[in-house]
Amino acid sequence: MANDILSSAPQTDYVEKAPKIDPKEFQKVINSRRSVRIFDGKPIPEKIMERCLENAILAPNSSNLQQWEFYLVQSPARKEALIKACLDQVAAKTASELIVAVARTATWQSRAGEMLRIFGKAKGVPKSAVSYYKKIVPFVYSQGPLGIFGLAKRFLYFFRGLSVPIIREPVSKSQMKIWAVKSTALGCQNLMLSLRAYGYDSCPMEGYDSKRIKRILDLPRDAVVVLVIAAGRRAKGGIYGERIRFAKSEFIKKA
Amino acid sequence: MANDILSSAPQTDYVEKAPKIDPKEFQKVINSRRSVRIFDGKPIPEKIMERCLENAILAPNSSNLQQWEFYLVQSPARKEALIKACLDQVAAKTASELIVAVARTATWQSRAGEMLRIFGKAKGVPKSAVSYYKKIVPFVYSQGPLGIFGLAKRFLYFFRGLSVPIIREPVSKSQMKIWAVKSTALGCQNLMLSLRAYGYDSCPMEGYDSKRIKRILDLPRDAVVVLVIAAGRRAKGGIYGERIRFAKSEFIKKA
Repeated sequence: MANDILSSAPQTDYVEKAPKIDPKEFQKVINSRRSVRIFDGKPIPEKIMERCLENAILAPNSSNLQQWEFYLVQSPARKEALIKACLDQVAAKTASELIVAVARTATWQSRAGEMLRIFGKAKGVPKSAVSYYKKIVPFVYSQGPLGIFGLAKRFLYFFRGLSVPIIREPVSKSQMKIWAVKSTALGCQNLMLSLRAYGYDSCPMEGYDSKRIKRILDLPRDAVVVLVIAAGRRAKGGIYGERIRFAKSEFIKKA
Repeated sequence: MANDILSSAPQTDYVEKAPKIDPKEFQKVINSRRSVRIFDGKPIPEKIMERCLENAILAPNSSNLQQWEFYLVQSPARKEALIKACLDQVAAKTASELIVAVARTATWQSRAGEMLRIFGKAKGVPKSAVSYYKKIVPFVYSQGPLGIFGLAKRFLYFFRGLSVPIIREPVSKSQMKIWAVKSTALGCQNLMLSLRAYGYDSCPMEGYDSKRIKRILDLPRDAVVVLVIAAGRRAKGGIYGERIRFAKSEFIKKA
């Protein structure tokens, strides 16, 4: 099915060279990114905030369907409601900016259409890429009314998977959520590291009332709140203690 | 419930200053990270690979329960099987290293225990932090046999949520997966950006047979394969074309 487009490379004369990078500067970003729970109130310059959000959507994402949305909540009424929906967390209350990261499970169809429109205008797009968005994407991501097509796929994959390797997900609405959340989280990490690189800090929050947030932002039913990211500059005492990580051998394994 | 520990800050004299960082170097990492689908076969020095994996587990994660695992697959037999489970994708076939990122939904209990052991040896840990791992974590993440406790929590949250904001997830096994996948994806992005910063490239793959991968790595039932990350150095033609992103106003919204 998807095998051909995956296992053979298209002919292309596109070349993108990697720039020279000083890894020490990057390592400082990784090391100094801590969850900051009290911010000093200093505003984040608009240009920096925008750059960080733009960096979020440069993360890789599944089939380039860009299943993410980032809401920068600035209206005073909405911000107040959002802080309450975050249970008045200190990080939310003291943040200079609050960003709600949202995963969408129902936009893939229109995004696939956008890909096809872009391909239509471009030169030298391989046929396999067009057929990927025309045929494979609808097959892979459709779940059908009441998830009935997903269920059918589950059976199909099970039986076909007995003899050959086969992609088994997503075959349900909840697996669609996992799919969309995954790409959105990649974007969130770009956002948080970017804030750090540009001199600011963040706190990813999961302690929130997702139902209230969906109401505040008037989000459609298919939207999943992934994280609320508080952003600003660390206040004194804003990091509660040294970073705690358990023995790395529990998490990094050679197989 | 969780409100007190979230909404009031503990007394601490811990201070962690942010270093000066050159954001231009970081921006180069973000801009030059592309999904590379053909690698040149040059090995990644062990020290660099390790540093990148260590950076993965410096990402933020839910309640510091570190619900991720990163498998660097190097045994020739396992690597061959993994490539097949990735449907012989070019990126998998040509990768110098293959890393399987796994989310765990059943390790939180032992991780909470580790946090309590660390707190037991440390000085000045606020009572609220101890009670968070002793009482709140088990309440929030337990789903009970057949998910019955999750269901009970769903009702409880629904009724309590009528009058006050309340954290509504996770209340099912599939929401536990979303929870664990989210943190693991944050780690994956750290890993991919780190590879780029140190001169290497990556391709996050979702086109794989998760069932076969679980068998290859002998993963427990609760494990979720999040991404297989191919790593190496870009070959000529390894990036298929310019980055395509739709209008940013569709994804970055001011509310």
